[in-house]
Amino acid sequence: MLFVLVNDLNKHIGSEVRVRGWTHKIRKLGGMNFLMLRDRTGVVQAAIEGEVAEKIKGIGVESVISVRGKVVKEDRAPGGVEIKAADIEIVSKVSDEIPLEINKKDLPANIDTVLEYRPIALRHAKEQAIFMVQAEIAKSFADFFKGEGFTQIFTPKLVAAGAEGGAGLFKVDYFDRKAFLGQSPQLYKQIMVGVFERVFEIGHVYRAEEHNTSRHLNEVVQMDIEMGFIDGQDDVMDIQEEFLKRLSQDLKRNYSKEFEMHGASIPEVTKIPRLTLEEVQKLIEKEYKKECRGLPDLDPEHEKMICEYMQKQGKGDYVFVTHFPAKKKPFYLMDDAEHEGKSLSFDLLFRGIEISSGGQRNHLYDVQVEKFKRMGYDPENFKDYLSIFKYGMPPHGGWSIGLERITMKMLGLSNVRQASLFPRDRHRLTP
Amino acid sequence: MLFVLVNDLNKHIGSEVRVRGWTHKIRKLGGMNFLMLRDRTGVVQAAIEGEVAEKIKGIGVESVISVRGKVVKEDRAPGGVEIKAADIEIVSKVSDEIPLEINKKDLPANIDTVLEYRPIALRHAKEQAIFMVQAEIAKSFADFFKGEGFTQIFTPKLVAAGAEGGAGLFKVDYFDRKAFLGQSPQLYKQIMVGVFERVFEIGHVYRAEEHNTSRHLNEVVQMDIEMGFIDGQDDVMDIQEEFLKRLSQDLKRNYSKEFEMHGASIPEVTKIPRLTLEEVQKLIEKEYKKECRGLPDLDPEHEKMICEYMQKQGKGDYVFVTHFPAKKKPFYLMDDAEHEGKSLSFDLLFRGIEISSGGQRNHLYDVQVEKFKRMGYDPENFKDYLSIFKYGMPPHGGWSIGLERITMKMLGLSNVRQASLFPRDRHRLTP
Repeated sequence: MLFVLVNDLNKHIGSEVRVRGWTHKIRKLGGMNFLMLRDRTGVVQAAIEGEVAEKIKGIGVESVISVRGKVVKEDRAPGGVEIKAADIEIVSKVSDEIPLEINKKDLPANIDTVLEYRPIALRHAKEQAIFMVQAEIAKSFADFFKGEGFTQIFTPKLVAAGAEGGAGLFKVDYFDRKAFLGQSPQLYKQIMVGVFERVFEIGHVYRAEEHNTSRHLNEVVQMDIEMGFIDGQDDVMDIQEEFLKRLSQDLKRNYSKEFEMHGASIPEVTKIPRLTLEEVQKLIEKEYKKECRGLPDLDPEHEKMICEYMQKQGKGDYVFVTHFPAKKKPFYLMDDAEHEGKSLSFDLLFRGIEISSGGQRNHLYDVQVEKFKRMGYDPENFKDYLSIFKYGMPPHGGWSIGLERITMKMLGLSNVRQASLFPRDRHRLTP
Repeated sequence: MLFVLVNDLNKHIGSEVRVRGWTHKIRKLGGMNFLMLRDRTGVVQAAIEGEVAEKIKGIGVESVISVRGKVVKEDRAPGGVEIKAADIEIVSKVSDEIPLEINKKDLPANIDTVLEYRPIALRHAKEQAIFMVQAEIAKSFADFFKGEGFTQIFTPKLVAAGAEGGAGLFKVDYFDRKAFLGQSPQLYKQIMVGVFERVFEIGHVYRAEEHNTSRHLNEVVQMDIEMGFIDGQDDVMDIQEEFLKRLSQDLKRNYSKEFEMHGASIPEVTKIPRLTLEEVQKLIEKEYKKECRGLPDLDPEHEKMICEYMQKQGKGDYVFVTHFPAKKKPFYLMDDAEHEGKSLSFDLLFRGIEISSGGQRNHLYDVQVEKFKRMGYDPENFKDYLSIFKYGMPPHGGWSIGLERITMKMLGLSNVRQASLFPRDRHRLTP
């Protein structure tokens, strides 16, 4: 007799089957014991009496068990079926009382407690939902870009220098010298445009930033793309928009239940508005009476305001903000020939927070060398990177999306740590 | 007029189109110029005369260009079509002579040269083929395990302690303390079996090993799985075998041309032999007169011998070697109750080299604590990890496959560095 997954039990009504999983809950009702068994697909109720009831005495929730019994229709049970337990085998008995109640509707609100007991907290249905959605986002990303002719690449995270200058890098003892943890695969993905034209990567990036906020982590997973032969940065935004449409479709088809569990909605994506930083600042001043014109970037508060405003106007949950000042953006971005001092750059805001940055890059050797000099970098330090521009690079651009941030805002979580299995921050290196 | 990919040109015979890409080669033949243009899908020949020929004077190979012209059938040209160039636009002219001839059948044999000029060397067709195959291996892995009910996870690479003890770890300055780069997601994927039963991960792992051989790198991509509710380690090998079958099918369907280019064959997978270490050692002594019985592991030489022997016997390119001595294997492996001193562990050899290790893990708290003590570890240092065994863990096991190693052996490469875009070794941190 094979084991049946909880999800498949309704195909076995009237038969004897075996199921296995965790003891999710035990309760007595009118002399009858009901044990809720949880496997990776769901929870089923087992009705237990007589000798079998003796076996589960004192086993405690989360003990791993195997139940044999007949499947019957039972409208009052979750999933509409129940197992009349003929036998129970205890596979692993818990040896300690569980520190968090993971069989209640919600976990305790205190995030520090949830993170302290992370291995157990993650067994809660709502926690599981977060990481099922996260896996789907990564899969949807990989599938979409593979379909668009992109090649997946794996680039090193141990690097000799940072992609965005020297600040914010973690130092590594690399044999007899120093290495750093990569902040971004930027330079590598540009090199790879020279090879495959279109590439994507899903990988860790590191930022040694001291701030300890609800939106920053020191280690995150980044979804990166870079594509050649673009006519301008709108091409790069277009493909991001197409991906976000596809993502919403994938999530709707496969994970609506998980969104419901979190009281969250899957974004409707039609046409994402594209506003310059100046236009956004003008709007914020007009609508929110907040002075911000001339600032080189949006504050978190401004990001919230513009998103709220666009949502109210029925323009959706995403907003592109474009044309940031060149001075405040990394060296690899192309200056906008039409707007003095501006770069061909954009951020994507989603429900009040930046989840992606991108733009068009320099692709001509002389232009990049000149830009290095203007920004005070020594081109000698970027020799390998610069070499690609000597040997023919097409106009290109790309972007990255932070996997934890998009997961957080998708599900309406309040802290990015909730969207990382084992978050790394200023104080957290364990579990 | 839209741009057409080289691969699609035979659908446009008789029409005027535009193509864009790199100047792969230029040659003169009877007063006519022929320019080979390369994009991400292939190479096409453009016939150039008159004024247009003037434009390409001195542009040099690898310059990025855009060609407009009529597509004609031409059996003597690669792909069977040719473009009669009506106009050429030079997008990015090379500013230096290219340091490697990437339009010849083979790159120079010296791997140091190839790695020194990596950004350019990767443009060679055979180099591209390696990383197209590598991307397909990763995709095939993710697709197969997703289909088997596994959830993709992303676990931290910045850790407080190593999964296999303290040796061979890279140290990181993590604010005011030390962190390490993870050698393996082992402990995290076991934790996640308690959450999702079945998980997989594709991510970087780090080994600070001093040796500088043709089969070691200090940063590699590892494909990991871990699954709960197994009946023994054979279940874990079974699913690996199924994956390898699927992988060969995927590669055959999509990348036969790339294998041909490397003169390599895609392995036929039926039933992979499973031999204990003792059986393998006996065979080697018998067939190769090499004393090795009693050794705790196979040497590289032994790995080659047993693979060669099995291939000669018509048993295929893969061999499982099982039941290594418990003392030489990591603490998380389960001891074999039936064979004193042996662990439930296996290596997968492929064409003469180990590409995967796995086994069944301890899942009971007391057993793991006792094993820590026996092996001289302080269980206090593994508190978070140990906690999962207090709260109910099913029997479980898993394995990892090194992405670079399987790529190397698939394509018959002689050095694992050839299967890493930007390899990190004892001396190499750039490009």
